Amino acid sequence: MSKIINDAETVVIESLRGLQHAHASILQVNESPLFVRTAGKRPGGHVGVISGGGSGHEPLHAGFVGLGMLAAAVPGPVFTSPGPNQITAAARSVDSGAGVLFLVKNYTGDIMNFEAAAEDLAAEGIRSATVVIRDDVAIADTEATAGRRGVAGVVFVEKMAGAAAARGNSLDLVAAVAQAAADRVRTIGVALAAGSLFHSPEPTFDLTEGELEVGIGIHGEPGRWRGPLVPSRELVETMLDAVLAEIDDNKQVLVLVNGMGSTSLAELHIVFNDAYEILEHRGFEVRDALVGDFVTSVDMAGFSISILGVTPELEDFWRDPVDTPALSRHRR
Amino acid sequence: MSKIINDAETVVIESLRGLQHAHASILQVNESPLFVRTAGKRPGGHVGVISGGGSGHEPLHAGFVGLGMLAAAVPGPVFTSPGPNQITAAARSVDSGAGVLFLVKNYTGDIMNFEAAAEDLAAEGIRSATVVIRDDVAIADTEATAGRRGVAGVVFVEKMAGAAAARGNSLDLVAAVAQAAADRVRTIGVALAAGSLFHSPEPTFDLTEGELEVGIGIHGEPGRWRGPLVPSRELVETMLDAVLAEIDDNKQVLVLVNGMGSTSLAELHIVFNDAYEILEHRGFEVRDALVGDFVTSVDMAGFSISILGVTPELEDFWRDPVDTPALSRHRR
Repeated sequence: MSKIINDAETVVIESLRGLQHAHASILQVNESPLFVRTAGKRPGGHVGVISGGGSGHEPLHAGFVGLGMLAAAVPGPVFTSPGPNQITAAARSVDSGAGVLFLVKNYTGDIMNFEAAAEDLAAEGIRSATVVIRDDVAIADTEATAGRRGVAGVVFVEKMAGAAAARGNSLDLVAAVAQAAADRVRTIGVALAAGSLFHSPEPTFDLTEGELEVGIGIHGEPGRWRGPLVPSRELVETMLDAVLAEIDDNKQVLVLVNGMGSTSLAELHIVFNDAYEILEHRGFEVRDALVGDFVTSVDMAGFSISILGVTPELEDFWRDPVDTPALSRHRR
Repeated sequence: MSKIINDAETVVIESLRGLQHAHASILQVNESPLFVRTAGKRPGGHVGVISGGGSGHEPLHAGFVGLGMLAAAVPGPVFTSPGPNQITAAARSVDSGAGVLFLVKNYTGDIMNFEAAAEDLAAEGIRSATVVIRDDVAIADTEATAGRRGVAGVVFVEKMAGAAAARGNSLDLVAAVAQAAADRVRTIGVALAAGSLFHSPEPTFDLTEGELEVGIGIHGEPGRWRGPLVPSRELVETMLDAVLAEIDDNKQVLVLVNGMGSTSLAELHIVFNDAYEILEHRGFEVRDALVGDFVTSVDMAGFSISILGVTPELEDFWRDPVDTPALSRHRR
């Protein structure tokens, strides 16, 4: 689909400038090296929770910088990992002595560059810990692959780790909260139509109108199977089967129905209504939910469902207030 | 584009059930007659601000029910006005003796049905006032037409009126705040691709890939002109010319860059960055902004720009805290 931009080469920086102008009280953009951090002075002694990765998934990650969530986000080019120099600069900027926690979606380039940054920071005396998010159940988690991809479940991890950090907890505890959240969240996605990137209106993969592909990744990676369009209830049932098979025996859950970009909010709420009713029917208790566009694939049509088997401790972090451009809620 | 639904006939109600399950602490859905209201007991003596209109523009209006914004929303079928019986039921439900304020987008059916409801309520002793939103500058405001359409500017009016009501002001004052906001906001939209409704994947109008149409309405109503795709900066300059010609001589403005459904958040932020820089260059001060999908046209690709010439009083209402599904912010 055609895009409203000025130049495909400057999409990321112009978009971030717009984000900053719209939320100057919350965040500021450092252009060279490129990272986004909370505005104003950081509270002393708080762990800096940092995430990053390729752009094209907006509002992820920069849209989650702010009170109670990320201290900084490190955006790479579209669908491309950020460089270690960006990550180290972000960490130096937000570290207040308590160290930084890296939340990294499981992609080879991201893992490599966050590791390189962690080594450089260690040499400077800045402590870091890293939690890797691998929530996508679409592909099997075997040693033959790079392992499962990190997708929309990262939103839960960022929120809970951010809340733990905002309470002034130690790096070890904040990392443990993030790890617990990452261990407990699983996701599966579906595409109805490919999106396109900014340099060309051509779709990033082929999918016939009236077909869907279950298990697709947020960069259009191939899924488990293709088939004809089915009613929402039937599709959601299938997707929940895949996700719930990978969740611990925990009947209290948080749910994220995440739009990939072009799917209407009305549809996302229909999907969530189906998920809610199916889960309750199967004896789960939906403790809270997010429905909307959080981890997109530019303008792909489709959605993902993430389920997090929640403990009372994680739920308490989840309910803490948060004030970021893309997720702002009072205490719930 | 294909839709993930169960049945085109039940899109509105299933979507609202999903909204309620996701935000049960904020709102509740009354299914027959259909309206959405704040959860729990209403504060005594507060004016109930109510809006409504055809569905298909989600999150409008039900997504704005909650603390500091709407007391109730009345959703019609897709692109179709709600009936007077729905409106009167919503008003009875939220009136606590201080009366209700109707915020109505200027479409013939909406105006007629809210008027009929106001007459019925008056007969029952429930006071109401009505403010009509006609912010779309795409068509001339002549007596030969039904006048200008109400589009995305309604979000500002709902927010400010809701804040005025939440402070316990009288119906006259809340209506005056809403009228002042409605008088000061102007909007223009652009489409890059038609969306489709829920009963068919066929696009609702014809627009060739690589073309855009400026001045289009939120139901796909024809715009001022069509032309080839141009860079964002050039398009935004043209759109701002049209909007600013209709704004009072007020250099302090609020800006809403509103996505129509399928346009990526990255693009909306690029558009806002251009709008911000152009406005500042022309001597305006952008006091605050919203960037995102607030008043959609199902899955149309495109966006609108709304400008509100803001007074200190209106800005103060704007900055009050708000907690609704689609707009939740701490005091700013």
